[in-house]
Amino acid sequence: MTGTTDSAAAGGSTPEAIMGATYRALCEHGYADLTMQDIADESDKSKASLHYHFDTKEELLLAFLDHLYDAFTDDVGTTDGDDAVERLVRFVDELLCPAERTDEPRAESSPDGPSDDGTDDDGTGGDDPNDGAGTDEFEEFQTALLEIKAQGPYVEAYREQLERVDAFVRGRVRSIVADGIEEGTIRADVDPDDTAAFVATLVDGVNTRRVALGETDGSVRNTFLAYVRENLVAPGADVAVDLDPGSDADRDTDGDATGAADGRAAAGGDD
Amino acid sequence: MTGTTDSAAAGGSTPEAIMGATYRALCEHGYADLTMQDIADESDKSKASLHYHFDTKEELLLAFLDHLYDAFTDDVGTTDGDDAVERLVRFVDELLCPAERTDEPRAESSPDGPSDDGTDDDGTGGDDPNDGAGTDEFEEFQTALLEIKAQGPYVEAYREQLERVDAFVRGRVRSIVADGIEEGTIRADVDPDDTAAFVATLVDGVNTRRVALGETDGSVRNTFLAYVRENLVAPGADVAVDLDPGSDADRDTDGDATGAADGRAAAGGDD
Repeated sequence: MTGTTDSAAAGGSTPEAIMGATYRALCEHGYADLTMQDIADESDKSKASLHYHFDTKEELLLAFLDHLYDAFTDDVGTTDGDDAVERLVRFVDELLCPAERTDEPRAESSPDGPSDDGTDDDGTGGDDPNDGAGTDEFEEFQTALLEIKAQGPYVEAYREQLERVDAFVRGRVRSIVADGIEEGTIRADVDPDDTAAFVATLVDGVNTRRVALGETDGSVRNTFLAYVRENLVAPGADVAVDLDPGSDADRDTDGDATGAADGRAAAGGDD
Repeated sequence: MTGTTDSAAAGGSTPEAIMGATYRALCEHGYADLTMQDIADESDKSKASLHYHFDTKEELLLAFLDHLYDAFTDDVGTTDGDDAVERLVRFVDELLCPAERTDEPRAESSPDGPSDDGTDDDGTGGDDPNDGAGTDEFEEFQTALLEIKAQGPYVEAYREQLERVDAFVRGRVRSIVADGIEEGTIRADVDPDDTAAFVATLVDGVNTRRVALGETDGSVRNTFLAYVRENLVAPGADVAVDLDPGSDADRDTDGDATGAADGRAAAGGDD
């Protein structure tokens, strides 16, 4: 449908082109109703040639989830920041984007949530079919992803892929918290594992609510920052939990070009 | 299937018997694959007689969600406690049960989550087809509910019902927090709305993870209690955030410093 005019998709290696087509088909049709034909329609492949690579829709979706994991872990790469507290807040912002930063201009690699990318970054679907509709597409994809999550009890292989993403997220939080304890910015009595589970749960809650309720108001972020400030930050530590990419009027005009918009206001820099 | 041997289901008023059958059919088949015939099979009604009441599966499911709301709001009724902090923790426990209290004996009206009841309490499906499998049934139902949540963007009427439950949950948290501020047990600078959104998001996250990842380890509860203790409880307030229904004896027998992290330190007691 769109793949034929997308040279990246048409010219990419076959599996990558299929991944891009799968992403678009999921956005358009959701998971439950998705057929191999829908995916073929989004690519320049025939349904028969899809079946050459993947016996079933489930098998194709597994490859897609695998691809998503790679793209996601590449995308969040390392999380920079002056200290562990700043890195934690930035990492959570990356996970919550864009729902929790609705009034922020879309970043370069949108849509850019915990598990949604893998099309823009790998050249398989770079030019959005509907430009400017990135948020819609993000939400469509989150919806399909929630359907896939609801398959967790039935399709063990899906669950394993979901667990892999989750383990990555929790591992990152855990290691940031451990770093913070070591550097003295996070209290020594904070449990890195509990904190990781808490953060992962909040992120899952935000994502579920975006789909189920259409909620994108960002209010959770404020409370998350309060939680960080009062539960995690070590007494007397010289860190500021005041990164507020979504609501500060000056977030984009501080001369720090990309800075504040991505949650990169220097913690402690403005006090 | 089971309804014919269930006198409560067979003898109830028709709509109530249908609600019980719908609950059982959802647990067994999930939402996406559910047919009117599946629901008829769980009741003593014919498919034709179901259609007499409900034109479509969607219409029946809407009546079911409505019924669920009534059962849920009846069930959580008022939340008792000596103070607002205790009431908040108890309310959240009711929402998180049973996933967050896995090692606790099941309560009288289980399954008893945010939106799962409505069969045991109203006599439409009181005697579980598979006794002792309450947790399985709860998880099956949560799975179907997650599928319904994933319909939010497509079926506005589902979303409205989901929003109604959510508004109830947030309203309850908000009012408990406001009470706490007034009675002096909760800090005056706590925002009741933000707190309500935060708690509702956490609960949604726990429910999603139970389905997607099979996670029922209860670790979020500990961090929630730490959050309550350190973000909400007013300094010097004579309240203890030490309700720990699941783990009094066994969770931390090691006697180490993490005891406090388990939520049993008296909030104002140790300073």
